[in-house]
Amino acid sequence: MKILGIDPGLNITGYGVIETAGRRVRLVEAGVVRGGSSSNRTLAERVAEVHQGVAEVIETHAPEVMAIEELYSHYDRPKTAILMGHARGAIILAGQLGGLSVKHYAATQIKKTLTGNGRAPKTQMQQAIARELGLPAPPEPADVADALAIAMTHWFLDCRLSVESSK
Amino acid sequence: MKILGIDPGLNITGYGVIETAGRRVRLVEAGVVRGGSSSNRTLAERVAEVHQGVAEVIETHAPEVMAIEELYSHYDRPKTAILMGHARGAIILAGQLGGLSVKHYAATQIKKTLTGNGRAPKTQMQQAIARELGLPAPPEPADVADALAIAMTHWFLDCRLSVESSK
Repeated sequence: MKILGIDPGLNITGYGVIETAGRRVRLVEAGVVRGGSSSNRTLAERVAEVHQGVAEVIETHAPEVMAIEELYSHYDRPKTAILMGHARGAIILAGQLGGLSVKHYAATQIKKTLTGNGRAPKTQMQQAIARELGLPAPPEPADVADALAIAMTHWFLDCRLSVESSK
Repeated sequence: MKILGIDPGLNITGYGVIETAGRRVRLVEAGVVRGGSSSNRTLAERVAEVHQGVAEVIETHAPEVMAIEELYSHYDRPKTAILMGHARGAIILAGQLGGLSVKHYAATQIKKTLTGNGRAPKTQMQQAIARELGLPAPPEPADVADALAIAMTHWFLDCRLSVESSK
């Protein structure tokens, strides 16, 4: 099964595609989609860039599932939350139109699943991702590592549920 | 020129298409697009419903401009703001992909443009819309009246600017 993990953002959206087979997993592709800066692009243009970038990844790799970081309910600035919502809406729309199942995971759930600690620092998360995927170094930038962590979280939880339900 | 006004929402999005010619304006079509309830639909499904509904209106009427209510920066609940952002992102994406120019207007600006009062109550707004468009009764539901008010605001401000710039 191919899983597309997404760390959503209007400036920069991290993505990571993993392929799982039983208890094995491999990295297929990871990178970022840039919505561009508000200084030279309209909000509508930035939303479209993010949407189309994610749609291209879906078209290329045809994943079955999109795993995306959950809505935050706490932001320092409401405007940031609303803008994040725009990016997230455009991204899950790409998933829905592409026929993917869209799954949401909270940041603490992702950290806990990968490291056992819901408050794990970023470096610990990056190391966990590198180890699990057999990468020579932690993925850069952090948005890519976060996207892969979300994809891995879906795999772990989905796999665990499958094992438990087959008992 | 055809202008598509949008009052965005995930549950219900009001829309109104007006056609302007010089100082004349007529109502082409108005209505609502429903994203459905969170009780029986996923967020991705609701976002896709809203996006596709607005995209159909654009395909049918081919407006040149989308006028949409500005981002709020004050919400009682941050989660509401984020969900509204999802709907708004999917809607302006439909505008951008349809080749429309997307314009944002603040609620107070819309009220002031239509009634002269930035804090006009809803009934006064609905009456102003009915009068301007020569409708026998105020448009219902309020989402439709709001969408038409936003479209009219763009027309008024755009027209005024054109007149001033041609002096």
